[in-house]
Amino acid sequence: MPVVVTIARPSVASDFSDARAFEIVPFDQPIVDAMNLGITRGDGIFETIGIVNGIVQDEEAHLRRFARSATILELPIPDPSAYRAAVAAGIAALGVTDPTTEVYCKYVLTRGIEGRPLSPTGYAFLDVNPSWDRERTTGIGVVTLSRGYALDIAQTSPWLLQGAKTLSYAVNRAVLREAARRGADDVLFTTTDGYVLEGPTSSLLLRFDDSYVTPTPELGVLHGTAQYGAFNYLASIGASTSYRPVLISELMDADALWMTNSQRLAAPVHTLDGRSIPVDTEFTAALNAALLARTE
Amino acid sequence: MPVVVTIARPSVASDFSDARAFEIVPFDQPIVDAMNLGITRGDGIFETIGIVNGIVQDEEAHLRRFARSATILELPIPDPSAYRAAVAAGIAALGVTDPTTEVYCKYVLTRGIEGRPLSPTGYAFLDVNPSWDRERTTGIGVVTLSRGYALDIAQTSPWLLQGAKTLSYAVNRAVLREAARRGADDVLFTTTDGYVLEGPTSSLLLRFDDSYVTPTPELGVLHGTAQYGAFNYLASIGASTSYRPVLISELMDADALWMTNSQRLAAPVHTLDGRSIPVDTEFTAALNAALLARTE
Repeated sequence: MPVVVTIARPSVASDFSDARAFEIVPFDQPIVDAMNLGITRGDGIFETIGIVNGIVQDEEAHLRRFARSATILELPIPDPSAYRAAVAAGIAALGVTDPTTEVYCKYVLTRGIEGRPLSPTGYAFLDVNPSWDRERTTGIGVVTLSRGYALDIAQTSPWLLQGAKTLSYAVNRAVLREAARRGADDVLFTTTDGYVLEGPTSSLLLRFDDSYVTPTPELGVLHGTAQYGAFNYLASIGASTSYRPVLISELMDADALWMTNSQRLAAPVHTLDGRSIPVDTEFTAALNAALLARTE
Repeated sequence: MPVVVTIARPSVASDFSDARAFEIVPFDQPIVDAMNLGITRGDGIFETIGIVNGIVQDEEAHLRRFARSATILELPIPDPSAYRAAVAAGIAALGVTDPTTEVYCKYVLTRGIEGRPLSPTGYAFLDVNPSWDRERTTGIGVVTLSRGYALDIAQTSPWLLQGAKTLSYAVNRAVLREAARRGADDVLFTTTDGYVLEGPTSSLLLRFDDSYVTPTPELGVLHGTAQYGAFNYLASIGASTSYRPVLISELMDADALWMTNSQRLAAPVHTLDGRSIPVDTEFTAALNAALLARTE
């Protein structure tokens, strides 16, 4: 059963005491008000993190991105120590003993109730990660879909909140239904001016010979923590890595593609828009082993 | 105090019995699970409706649009009789006796809990409408902001869910903060190819001489129910009305502009991007009186 942890004071702005109050509640006990802006407006932020053998992977990177999302949405900045402690409490409550069992945690901050100041809502939930064996080994089929924006949208129109991980993810769900209709597992967003971006819940990693590339995080995409972990691994084995804008037309030239995130880790792309792409089984296994072994 | 009504079987697809179960719950009693997709993904839909003297204004138009939003999001279709009954129960529970007191109601349908089929969540909440006297008489200042999309986005990229009233409204909140920074009250969205669309929670009505125009609902904007009511009133007084694509450049030629929605009704625009626009006080008062007098 999942574990839900409510956080009494999720933001620094509302944190008027040293008390760190958490409550472990049954996963099916309602904890959100009908008028909470997190549900009525999708007005909040989240992170999804992986936990292996009790180690929260890339915890600081997730907390930094969470704070960045809060800044973009002009939310009270989440208190990192409150979230760290909530995740730790959730891990203890979940009580997984097998060190190879993967756990995931999603944590949330909403703006709270409309019209009531200083009422941000925070909570976390944790559960055993479903198996992603097929996706990590055989790979996934991906289709490209337009996100409808130009590459520089985050710079020209910051009010569109590109680059923040918000609770307004209905589109990110809708594109997965479109992918399923097209016989695919996942989506790679493209821009109206010819660039590739990211997936609805993952980052893109491309290989050209011995060089690994990910679309520039500043340009309308999130900085993926698993992708960052992959770059660290690649640097450790002497491979070249870089961030740069990637054209749709370059997808045809890539030797291999992966979609990376904290839950599924590195999923090789075996088909893109119906075209077969070679899967480097051995390298992918080494990459996922490295991602699972992250200790920070 | 607001009234919250939970709806046991909000969708036709999950309606396996004739039972219509509602529960009136205290407004601050949590009713939504931590893992409900309505909050974790903004994956749901809503309507906001006005109620005057116990009459739910344009109830059928709202229910039709609610069903249309469900279709776009591939949600189970909401059961109109369940929502009608929930709203009626909420009106009774709110117990407003003054026939001139305006009430608003928001109702919601979410996809329910991730991974659990047939678990859509439905509820409504109602409260006394705050006063919009200033907005309805003096008017509002509006700024234009790009929505980042071309005019035909709903046709070319239906997975972006334009034309559905979803719970993923973080951007619609962010643009109001941007408007406030620019000293304005509201926003008029524009396209990347030179057209005007709608506000984050309202429709645009323009007057050119004796002709009234609203941007075509099929082209990436919601069909506003108050705007539809305004067209009915205008037809009744012999004015010409039409839906058509409206260029940004035409805003300068309009004699008058209004933003309309179910709560604020018709708010004249007194300033657009810092430029003063004449407010037709007498006509606006008549229009709002007509909107308040809707009996269907």
